[in-house]
Amino acid sequence: MFGFENMKISSSDAANPVINLDQGDPTAFQEYWMSMTMKERCVVVIPGWDLMSYFSDKTNVCWFLRQDLAEAIKALHRAIGNAATEERYIVVGNGSSQLCQAALFALSSLSEDKPLSIVAAVPYYSTYEEEASYVQSQLYKWEGDARTFNKPGPYIEIVTSPNNPDGTIREPVVNRGGKVIYDFAYYWPHYTPITHRQDHDIMLFTFSKIAGHAGSRIGWALVKDIEVAKKMVQYLTINSIGVSKESQIRATVILNELTKSCRIKSESFFEYGNEKVKTRWESLRWVVDKTGDTFTLPDYPQAFCNFFGKSSSTYPAFAWLGCNEDKDLESLLKEKYVLTRGGERCGSDKKYVRVNMLGPNKDFEDFLNRLLTIKYPNCFEEIPCFEP
Amino acid sequence: MFGFENMKISSSDAANPVINLDQGDPTAFQEYWMSMTMKERCVVVIPGWDLMSYFSDKTNVCWFLRQDLAEAIKALHRAIGNAATEERYIVVGNGSSQLCQAALFALSSLSEDKPLSIVAAVPYYSTYEEEASYVQSQLYKWEGDARTFNKPGPYIEIVTSPNNPDGTIREPVVNRGGKVIYDFAYYWPHYTPITHRQDHDIMLFTFSKIAGHAGSRIGWALVKDIEVAKKMVQYLTINSIGVSKESQIRATVILNELTKSCRIKSESFFEYGNEKVKTRWESLRWVVDKTGDTFTLPDYPQAFCNFFGKSSSTYPAFAWLGCNEDKDLESLLKEKYVLTRGGERCGSDKKYVRVNMLGPNKDFEDFLNRLLTIKYPNCFEEIPCFEP
Ligand SMILES: Cc1ncc(COP(=O)(O)O)c(C=O)c1O
Ligand SMILES: Cc1ncc(COP(=O)(O)O)c(C=O)c1O
Repeated sequence: MFGFENMKISSSDAANPVINLDQGDPTAFQEYWMSMTMKERCVVVIPGWDLMSYFSDKTNVCWFLRQDLAEAIKALHRAIGNAATEERYIVVGNGSSQLCQAALFALSSLSEDKPLSIVAAVPYYSTYEEEASYVQSQLYKWEGDARTFNKPGPYIEIVTSPNNPDGTIREPVVNRGGKVIYDFAYYWPHYTPITHRQDHDIMLFTFSKIAGHAGSRIGWALVKDIEVAKKMVQYLTINSIGVSKESQIRATVILNELTKSCRIKSESFFEYGNEKVKTRWESLRWVVDKTGDTFTLPDYPQAFCNFFGKSSSTYPAFAWLGCNEDKDLESLLKEKYVLTRGGERCGSDKKYVRVNMLGPNKDFEDFLNRLLTIKYPNCFEEIPCFEP
Repeated sequence: MFGFENMKISSSDAANPVINLDQGDPTAFQEYWMSMTMKERCVVVIPGWDLMSYFSDKTNVCWFLRQDLAEAIKALHRAIGNAATEERYIVVGNGSSQLCQAALFALSSLSEDKPLSIVAAVPYYSTYEEEASYVQSQLYKWEGDARTFNKPGPYIEIVTSPNNPDGTIREPVVNRGGKVIYDFAYYWPHYTPITHRQDHDIMLFTFSKIAGHAGSRIGWALVKDIEVAKKMVQYLTINSIGVSKESQIRATVILNELTKSCRIKSESFFEYGNEKVKTRWESLRWVVDKTGDTFTLPDYPQAFCNFFGKSSSTYPAFAWLGCNEDKDLESLLKEKYVLTRGGERCGSDKKYVRVNMLGPNKDFEDFLNRLLTIKYPNCFEEIPCFEP
């Protein structure tokens, strides 16, 4: 289907443009939406007089959430089986980034101990540290690595599973009765086997990383406790008086299409997406193997995916690339004009980098080529295509 | 043209539904967009494959701002003559609310004194107090009324002109060399005479209050200093990774239509909007007069409007209604099922309330009726229509 093209390795590095694989811009999936079957679908039409009010539903705790978006979210979770939506409040945000901050605000406002400690196990999504620090709130305080955290009292642990940057499946590590924010940005079947339905107090999801619509800035939280939900809504009300209605309309249409697409294997976004990331991972592993012991990649266990009905591995949206010698891998790749996120920003070591696996085909090809030339400066070899 | 219908006063209060004039939901202008001339215009069509990236223009300081929106903003300001856009950075936000917080973050981060004092002259837009307090930042601190502020050292004054809640034209009052954030949400010709082109370091505008598209959550800042602009962008990057592309597209189309509409008097949104708010104000003043000395309203001076080319008054988006006796006016109106914002929330007295003047026609009519029945419980009179 939407395969990954054959790639040529060239040694002409001189005029090579910069490849930015630092941010997680998920544009790889655009080809799905541009395919013959999909191109005409999911078109959103908004007349000038529509969507003018600040409000969506004044009777809802999340008064700026459109009811049709709430329904679309629940339908997709039901179709995928990745999260429980029953007896929960849905809070919509300007991306799950804003919701994570809303959750920090809610949990710390409701806590008696302030500032409340915030931790995440290393390596963590570097943005959490920024989110928890930039306004220098007296409500909470970033305390870094959850594994070495030993302050007594209440705390918040952010658990990302599969993890950004290293793709591992995670559970809380502190386990001393603190609050947990689960970030399930990547708990979708194209990235990882859906082994069970997640069922926690606060779960974050993002529209950005499902089928690639990061420009819409839509995320949602599934929240059990009404007091937490109310405080999160208070944060969003003061912070931005809610969330774009245009984006909510578009997310509704696209999430409904994703749900529908699950019924037809040849049209299924998740079948397509799984092939896409799997193929890229196989190409990357081929290149890393080829370089001998220069680079490392994590191994991921197989698990039975309830959605696909078969055993499969994890194919994360980021590669956690390491080098075997004690080198600064970010700088090494920068010399090849490849921008990545250095491991130190994720609370880890500079011999690791986080590489976006969801950029445009051309960027990914060029990245593989340049990786190979680190080991073999004059190599010219064809990287096999793992298209099924 | 788009007139205000005749209103009947009825004494049947019993089953009257609640009228919410607390928030400033600007839905009154929807009729303009639904009129025969406008109904088919400004339709936005977005296919499923479009607007997927986080980025709009990686070379721009505000990397998530669409270039066409920047152009539309500049064109409208040029057509209206209300603000200088030359040699300025445009920062787009999820409403001007988020931009105000971005500006507080930027100015305080760049200041040596922390927490930086934040003030606004009473009566002020109550949200500023919430925005400056809710996360309990150590960067800045809400200090309330600018008129009584006497701490030495740097500070930020927020100046809203025309002011929310009382519609007055304002200048800074502290004037000791601090930073000023100008909120020009209502500096548009339907609300107030455009007497000169504003030309300050930080000016905030909102898409919500021009033609009524509050649901889109689009605001912009015009910023002179690149360091301030960069810090504001940093805030928006961490807070919400930018701003909905769908909303930006729609704002672009609608702002361009507004600019175009200025050329034809019969189609001009600003002509229409001015008639609309003026008519409502005349009806409200008629009712207030009718009640003798029960209620008060501010008087606004005439001034020459460069845009309309004639002298005119201010017709604010909110009425700052007072009562002559020492009463709690918010409670008094609540007894009539009319929700307003009590003066105390704006740093003022409870004998004042802020009333949204931009709600639906029916709500505004009912509000006037109920206001009259406070003085004349059994009155049944026709409020004249001031349609030109
Ligand atoms: C783990 C994780 N959570 C949240 C986000 C942010 O998502 P959003 O675009 O919804 O703000 C990302 C984006 O890279 C992410 O990797
Ligand atoms: C003075 C003022 N500034 C800002 C805002 C918020 O505007 P936005 O919808 O762009 O967040 C309002 C809304 O009522 C306002 O009155």
